[in-house]
Amino acid sequence: MKAEIITIGDEILIGQIIDSNSAYIAKEFNKIGVSVYQITSVQDERQHILDSLAIANARSQVVILTGGLGPTKDDITKHTLCEYFEDTLIQNDQVLAHIEMLFKKYISTPISELNRRQALIPSKAVALHNEFGTAPGIWMERNGTVFVSLPGVPYEMRGLIQNGVLPRIIEKFERPYIIHKTLMTYGLGESAIAEIIEDWEDNLPEEIKLAYLPNLGRVRLRLTAKGTDEDRLKRLLEQEVQKLHPLIGDILYGEEEDESIEAQLGKLLAEKGKTLSTAESFTGGKIAERITAVPGASSYFKGTVVSYATETKVKLVGVNEELIKKHSVVSEAVAIAMAENIKNIIGTDFSIATTGNAGPSKGDSNAAVGTVYIAISTPERTFAKEFQMGKLRERVVNKSVNKAFELLYKEIANF
Amino acid sequence: MKAEIITIGDEILIGQIIDSNSAYIAKEFNKIGVSVYQITSVQDERQHILDSLAIANARSQVVILTGGLGPTKDDITKHTLCEYFEDTLIQNDQVLAHIEMLFKKYISTPISELNRRQALIPSKAVALHNEFGTAPGIWMERNGTVFVSLPGVPYEMRGLIQNGVLPRIIEKFERPYIIHKTLMTYGLGESAIAEIIEDWEDNLPEEIKLAYLPNLGRVRLRLTAKGTDEDRLKRLLEQEVQKLHPLIGDILYGEEEDESIEAQLGKLLAEKGKTLSTAESFTGGKIAERITAVPGASSYFKGTVVSYATETKVKLVGVNEELIKKHSVVSEAVAIAMAENIKNIIGTDFSIATTGNAGPSKGDSNAAVGTVYIAISTPERTFAKEFQMGKLRERVVNKSVNKAFELLYKEIANF
Repeated sequence: MKAEIITIGDEILIGQIIDSNSAYIAKEFNKIGVSVYQITSVQDERQHILDSLAIANARSQVVILTGGLGPTKDDITKHTLCEYFEDTLIQNDQVLAHIEMLFKKYISTPISELNRRQALIPSKAVALHNEFGTAPGIWMERNGTVFVSLPGVPYEMRGLIQNGVLPRIIEKFERPYIIHKTLMTYGLGESAIAEIIEDWEDNLPEEIKLAYLPNLGRVRLRLTAKGTDEDRLKRLLEQEVQKLHPLIGDILYGEEEDESIEAQLGKLLAEKGKTLSTAESFTGGKIAERITAVPGASSYFKGTVVSYATETKVKLVGVNEELIKKHSVVSEAVAIAMAENIKNIIGTDFSIATTGNAGPSKGDSNAAVGTVYIAISTPERTFAKEFQMGKLRERVVNKSVNKAFELLYKEIANF
Repeated sequence: MKAEIITIGDEILIGQIIDSNSAYIAKEFNKIGVSVYQITSVQDERQHILDSLAIANARSQVVILTGGLGPTKDDITKHTLCEYFEDTLIQNDQVLAHIEMLFKKYISTPISELNRRQALIPSKAVALHNEFGTAPGIWMERNGTVFVSLPGVPYEMRGLIQNGVLPRIIEKFERPYIIHKTLMTYGLGESAIAEIIEDWEDNLPEEIKLAYLPNLGRVRLRLTAKGTDEDRLKRLLEQEVQKLHPLIGDILYGEEEDESIEAQLGKLLAEKGKTLSTAESFTGGKIAERITAVPGASSYFKGTVVSYATETKVKLVGVNEELIKKHSVVSEAVAIAMAENIKNIIGTDFSIATTGNAGPSKGDSNAAVGTVYIAISTPERTFAKEFQMGKLRERVVNKSVNKAFELLYKEIANF
């Protein structure tokens, strides 16, 4: 069974926003065995939307539309859907009551005619309750294909997917099982790995597909099994992973459990009852930000000093000025001092420190753009490593943050 | 003239990655007057790709394909493009020399047969030089439509767009002018604004389109002018913006110059020769991270303490324990103390401090989830404001970061 996603709105087509909604929907659909065949972004334009609906209708059982449900004139999804279904809009009293409640509770201005119009939905449609906003989801069916229109505001869309769309799809459709397993590797490129595992790849059972996903110095290998017998799929996947282990064991970093490395780190720290702090220079707080994006981080993460200026490294992280003069601010010695000091100052079991030059200019040091040092301090030792992360600022930071998490992960896992 | 983007790869369709490439391409195309009519994400599947090429060919003059150019077996774009053009792959010696150079310079392993194959391109194609990687861009033409295939790795794709694709499109096609102007508002919802400006909107000249873009407590109004006479378009846009000002002047926050608020803040600080520090609690370093993502931030940004734990607020930000006991850690008094102290400790002109509860649990305070305080300290005064940011963790953080930048921006602009 196939699904498609159609996102409506010029803001994606002029590059003003990135379409993160589709990835969210695709991920949630995959979990319940629904494959997304195509994602299409179209303009706020009647005929273009109608054409896309017809194409999707001809080949898919579920069509999700996002965007174009707001109260203003540039939003035309609802009217176009009505036209496609040869239907008319009628007022839904439950939706209207919900809109009135939201205005009373959160918004000081009186409810307007435009807001009221959001309670109009096609007469053949079921309204899906939008807990977080005024535009309801709209569920319609035609010749066995379901059309669902959702608002484009991400948190409203997510609530509707979880509480309205997924339960109804699970009830309505028989679905195959889709299982993914993603193995994370580091240290070898895509083609070098491909040569090592060529024989294995050529002999994969037909239910299993392999994909190489290179990103920021790591290659992830994604195995996807699809079929009707869940137990058989799990067994097949497990067998293939077992065959793979001896081939790439030395570059295998872990399995991706649909979870970021910072979330896995957090789990480890919480399990072991250990705490973490960071002292960040060129990473500018990005390590802290990713750690604290994990719910529950306050139980193991104590704090960070972002010492972007050299003087802040001295004042707040207690790095010796002589040491900086002798080794320069981008150096192994300074990274080690930062890691040890922050661990002691904040009082944690582990710490991460970074110092480096992300470019574009040379900043307080004379280090080449892309030269970075990452230090890890544990209850037993402190060490720093030097890396060359290239010339692109954003990439230097992101690769370094990933690398810091990798280094720390190994230390904590073995502790 | 129309362009389309086709992204190839299952990773987008299973939600494993978010398609940020398309937004980048769309934005760059818009700048040179090329409208993107549709963005389509399809699977790594021969027939699906062929069908998409044919549909795009029938209506667009430029078709950009991204993804599926790597050396491994799951990447089939090149072969499928060859099939579509009834062409064969031949070795491009310049590309091969580039691949050999990259391996010599950056990669210790010897060059493999798989890497060598990346120098094969369709005989009718022009190879576009990929400075950062081994897969070249591929430029082909058919009945006046250009097809360009680019690798999916973002920084490789970006280099190819800038140096290979844009200059060739500018040379080959006559393009209309497309000008966007985005006005940022705060404090009123989409429909309330729509009512205020209804007459104005109804009387917009036909070259100008209006879109409402609500996001995290702000609504942006985007005006798009399209036509052949650049001067006329600029004049029309300017006239309409002038008419709009008296209608929504009190909620107008600024114009979006294709630039984030943190970049605008950075410009202001650099112009005025002033410096900034932050003390962050529940925002976890996100404010620092966004500030330091702007190139050149080191000239005005000195550092941050992320005091995620209450004890870190005491130890590193010097907040009085009695004050915390009296007012609780999530309070106006603590926010103000954090802002004043960090400004003094790091020694900057301005500072931002945050304390609040982003959820899901209550953490060190008893404040309700979503209650936050944001404090701003200037050379003249310090103040804090309370906000209710809702119940969704990620949203609480992001709305608060935006709000902090807004509050600071006003202070610095008026300083």
